Amino acid sequence: MTLKKLLSLASAAALVPFVAIAQEAGDAEEAVEMVDAMAAVTALNVEMTFIFNTLLFIIGGFLVFFMAAGFCMLEAGLVRSKNTTMQLMKNISLFSLAAIAYFVVGFMIMYPGDAWIIDGWLGTPLMTFLEPVGVGIDEVDDAEYASVGSDFFFQLMFCAATASIVSGAVAERIKLWPFLVFVILLTGLIYPIQASWSWGEGWLDELGFLDFAGSSIVHSAGGWAALTGIIILGARAGKYGPGGKVNPIPGSNLALSTLGVFILWLGWFGFNGGSELAMGGVDAVSNVSRIMANTNAAAAAGAVAALILSQAMYKKPDLTLVLNGALAGLVSITAEPLEPNLLLATIIGAVGGVIVVLTVPLMDKLKWDDVVGAVPVHLFAGIWGTIAVIFSNSEATLINQIIGILAIGIFMAGASAIVWLIIKAVMGLRVDDEAEVTGLDKVELGMEAYPEFSKG
Amino acid sequence: MTLKKLLSLASAAALVPFVAIAQEAGDAEEAVEMVDAMAAVTALNVEMTFIFNTLLFIIGGFLVFFMAAGFCMLEAGLVRSKNTTMQLMKNISLFSLAAIAYFVVGFMIMYPGDAWIIDGWLGTPLMTFLEPVGVGIDEVDDAEYASVGSDFFFQLMFCAATASIVSGAVAERIKLWPFLVFVILLTGLIYPIQASWSWGEGWLDELGFLDFAGSSIVHSAGGWAALTGIIILGARAGKYGPGGKVNPIPGSNLALSTLGVFILWLGWFGFNGGSELAMGGVDAVSNVSRIMANTNAAAAAGAVAALILSQAMYKKPDLTLVLNGALAGLVSITAEPLEPNLLLATIIGAVGGVIVVLTVPLMDKLKWDDVVGAVPVHLFAGIWGTIAVIFSNSEATLINQIIGILAIGIFMAGASAIVWLIIKAVMGLRVDDEAEVTGLDKVELGMEAYPEFSKG
Amino acid sequence: MTLKKLLSLASAAALVPFVAIAQEAGDAEEAVEMVDAMAAVTALNVEMTFIFNTLLFIIGGFLVFFMAAGFCMLEAGLVRSKNTTMQLMKNISLFSLAAIAYFVVGFMIMYPGDAWIIDGWLGTPLMTFLEPVGVGIDEVDDAEYASVGSDFFFQLMFCAATASIVSGAVAERIKLWPFLVFVILLTGLIYPIQASWSWGEGWLDELGFLDFAGSSIVHSAGGWAALTGIIILGARAGKYGPGGKVNPIPGSNLALSTLGVFILWLGWFGFNGGSELAMGGVDAVSNVSRIMANTNAAAAAGAVAALILSQAMYKKPDLTLVLNGALAGLVSITAEPLEPNLLLATIIGAVGGVIVVLTVPLMDKLKWDDVVGAVPVHLFAGIWGTIAVIFSNSEATLINQIIGILAIGIFMAGASAIVWLIIKAVMGLRVDDEAEVTGLDKVELGMEAYPEFSKG
Repeated sequence: MTLKKLLSLASAAALVPFVAIAQEAGDAEEAVEMVDAMAAVTALNVEMTFIFNTLLFIIGGFLVFFMAAGFCMLEAGLVRSKNTTMQLMKNISLFSLAAIAYFVVGFMIMYPGDAWIIDGWLGTPLMTFLEPVGVGIDEVDDAEYASVGSDFFFQLMFCAATASIVSGAVAERIKLWPFLVFVILLTGLIYPIQASWSWGEGWLDELGFLDFAGSSIVHSAGGWAALTGIIILGARAGKYGPGGKVNPIPGSNLALSTLGVFILWLGWFGFNGGSELAMGGVDAVSNVSRIMANTNAAAAAGAVAALILSQAMYKKPDLTLVLNGALAGLVSITAEPLEPNLLLATIIGAVGGVIVVLTVPLMDKLKWDDVVGAVPVHLFAGIWGTIAVIFSNSEATLINQIIGILAIGIFMAGASAIVWLIIKAVMGLRVDDEAEVTGLDKVELGMEAYPEFSKG
Repeated sequence: MTLKKLLSLASAAALVPFVAIAQEAGDAEEAVEMVDAMAAVTALNVEMTFIFNTLLFIIGGFLVFFMAAGFCMLEAGLVRSKNTTMQLMKNISLFSLAAIAYFVVGFMIMYPGDAWIIDGWLGTPLMTFLEPVGVGIDEVDDAEYASVGSDFFFQLMFCAATASIVSGAVAERIKLWPFLVFVILLTGLIYPIQASWSWGEGWLDELGFLDFAGSSIVHSAGGWAALTGIIILGARAGKYGPGGKVNPIPGSNLALSTLGVFILWLGWFGFNGGSELAMGGVDAVSNVSRIMANTNAAAAAGAVAALILSQAMYKKPDLTLVLNGALAGLVSITAEPLEPNLLLATIIGAVGGVIVVLTVPLMDKLKWDDVVGAVPVHLFAGIWGTIAVIFSNSEATLINQIIGILAIGIFMAGASAIVWLIIKAVMGLRVDDEAEVTGLDKVELGMEAYPEFSKG
Repeated sequence: MTLKKLLSLASAAALVPFVAIAQEAGDAEEAVEMVDAMAAVTALNVEMTFIFNTLLFIIGGFLVFFMAAGFCMLEAGLVRSKNTTMQLMKNISLFSLAAIAYFVVGFMIMYPGDAWIIDGWLGTPLMTFLEPVGVGIDEVDDAEYASVGSDFFFQLMFCAATASIVSGAVAERIKLWPFLVFVILLTGLIYPIQASWSWGEGWLDELGFLDFAGSSIVHSAGGWAALTGIIILGARAGKYGPGGKVNPIPGSNLALSTLGVFILWLGWFGFNGGSELAMGGVDAVSNVSRIMANTNAAAAAGAVAALILSQAMYKKPDLTLVLNGALAGLVSITAEPLEPNLLLATIIGAVGGVIVVLTVPLMDKLKWDDVVGAVPVHLFAGIWGTIAVIFSNSEATLINQIIGILAIGIFMAGASAIVWLIIKAVMGLRVDDEAEVTGLDKVELGMEAYPEFSKG
């Protein structure tokens, strides 16, 4: 029995006999007091659910927050040391700007309630106000859900993650401020509009598109923004030589990148687990548990698949592919981390790992220079994950999933491309050649990340 | 309705009619059983509140614990690589010694209950004993609050944070053992005495001084201890040249420092959120949510303000200022993370970021050589945050806030200075010149942090 | 009063008088409804306990998960930079393979329920299936415990930790794939079989062997697997010179190692706290709090003891000993983190720190080349911690603790040695001399961790 069912049992109707008895006993006042006592029990139930759900968002929120550190370390380790300070700067700045943009307009666009400008498609850009201090159960926005503050806190972190996905892909050649302008528009407008279609009860939600925690809505969305940026920016100097030659540009600090992946993996427990949106019942908290186990299985499987496949293909296993394999496993399970059993979750994650190993060289063939592999991990594995929902969730249909993937893709790619191109025209996107060769840290920031360690 | 209100409804009084009915039905035993049953419901309510509050302290405690790692990484990255092992050593040692000093005397000095030596000013130094194993609701110290163990665990982390603030400021020239002796006195006596004035229901609390999570009580307190240490120690060799010349000494590993700031940011959710001291009701848990959202907003705003201002002032944005801007935003909101709305929290945090950018050069003018910027971040922004309480909390008055700031400042600076000077006289504080030039790692510890990476 | 006691009060028996009253009032239907209402309250109690316990496993699980990152950073920092990529690779791969092996057979071997092949000694290797989606309180495996998914999630992390212990000890000379084969057998079979004896209600549990969170079951177990590996592999080239000369091989990045220890310390709050297995009552959550405080005290004491002793013995305190001292303190308190008071926890942890400082040179005398000190920390301090249970837990006896230590030791050492030797015969264990000199990263993986930083 779920809490909700229990609540219905302990509701007003159940009080009637008590009142009747008291009345028969000839005391109206007693009857009223008894109703109060029972109502207190009922209210307690509602309150407990509210507290648990809110706590889930709080825990989920700080875990997903920490993913910002994970992305930062992953990316800082995969760029060359001459561009590391810039990558650190971009990551802390993008998170900070996302936090402001999302509160000023993003959150209300994403969850417009009834305040749609175009119904189901475009919400109203309003500033977010939380429930008042010391709010009571009778005054909260939704007594059967959770505190608005916790929901905002949680959702903000998803929005910021979208921007983190982009920063790694376009690293080592994009200027700071143009990038940050893109981030503001991405997190304040583009991502929230698209996310409102599904999570804000917009048209994709009505259609029946299913994306539990955001394989498409967060990861592919970020991936599309990244891909358009990569194409519009062009590859790093020296990455692609004549005759289709690909020059590998190794990351400068794989220990940091590995740490970043572990942090992201940790954060993903909040990302997927928190997306259950409830834990105030045996069913809900068991679902959260199931999500945790599945999320972990998929990540592990993605890493193992990439380990084995990179060994098979290149004779030597490739750490950066293993790291990205784990992330691809995580992205793959994100659209449906609840319904699969552990075996299916393992398979879904493993396919994600395979996708990364196979598509990283494909990117290079197309001369799409993605510094950290964000597009294979977040866009390609995100599409796979969104389709894989149909293997376990009977409410999902292939056609609806494809409509969602396409709608999100077209909108994100289109809006991102327009914004990238406008910024390029107005501010310029790319550092000049000298800065790229010397390093963005010295030229753009005048500060090196590792000033004492000589470069090989 | 809050849990407390619900509890009053479901309390003994509400049981009377049930008992009366049973008695009218002529069965005394039945009446007793009914009372038991209803008492169980009431007890359940109390118990739930206790569990939730305790859980908040547990979660808050481990998050604030992790701030020790954040400070450690921040500082390790901002010192030169020749002093990195020493900075790591100081950080893990200071936390460990703080943990022991706080349990042996600090906690009971800080929360003396009725055991004041000087009423409201000085508690009794007693060893801490937790509630017994398997304690019941009837045996706990405070059934309407939380487990003493969880409270101790949480408060210990605040105490250790105070010492972490100091270690960065006095880095690269202070000897290990004298520093650690200072830490023992700071965490066992100085911090707890001062903190008892507000949080131990001492005279500042009675006065009406308001400092929710410790902008003054923790951060400025640590800042004063740091500042006196900086002045008594003197600047690092070569930091200030003739004619007012300031020689920048860049940190050796900005990736670690950035990681440190993200970890501190994460930990601050426990720092401020846990300071609500309760989450066993709709009001309390919603307040915690609000604190989370505000804390994040202030940090983001501090970073963005420092980003923009450092760009404006120096033409190139400065990563270390952005990192410290985020921390200053966090310190600024710490005195009142609950009452502001998101916009006000953003403004309060932004002012914190501005303070850092403006006061870092000021410090250099005064030849106060603060290696990591601890004084601008924790002392100056802490004062600002303590004053900013009056903008949202109607119970705060400017005069009371200033009295608190001054009282804490005078006591912390005075006590710290006395301790620093005594240690200096007895043990010496500063390494000799050769050790400072060669590096503390080789000379004092015989162990380098990065022995294989040649120095530029 | 604990929740369980409350539940018994609010159980079916307590409903009788209500029903009787309604019946006396002449209305059978009313009686039924009243029973339903009271049953709802009772069910609520059970449900709350279930939710809290499950939440404890979820939080504990993600904290212990993060220990994988802690081990990875600790080890990556303690190896030379030429072997760092390999150490990163081993850590992320071992966790991923452990996750799969534990789900495919390990979990069911460890918790066989009634499915023993040899009663109390050997469970049946079955695949793990979680409770279905949206499971109700009447359908869960154990309504008075927690969700199977959360339990699996939590226990999986313990299993993976065992393998992480091994990877550091045998670093810098073992080949990747042979090591990973060992990991699969360790986490899928060897560890679960041994753990079933105590935690799966096997023969050691029946005997009365007490090991709360696994000083022996996890840490010594991993330590034995590590020690046999060290002996069978042999020391690193150049570690031991002629005439008993020991050449220290310094770690390449002590900042990472220190971070790793802080992460492990954080994770240990989940490791020990989660092992209370319940927090749905005042007693249980107070116990968790007590465990948190004791765990922290022991870690701090281990670090301080190593700090003081290394200063006394070598004139200069040794950071790596302090780091390992903290870990040894944690390992020491793990067998009984609940019963000791803070003072005893401090002493137990301090002895752990002393053990590390004294046994690290002993290892070198025996030419057991343990790269990270895993055997002193996990095996030796683990044995101490297992014995120390008798100082606070009146149910423990020295003889039973020794039987447990020996049984686990003989089985783990024996099984590990057999597996190591078979792998050695079939695949070879050790890289060739050239690879060891050049570095495993270049030769085995073709990828350096810090390609731009020249080596000193």
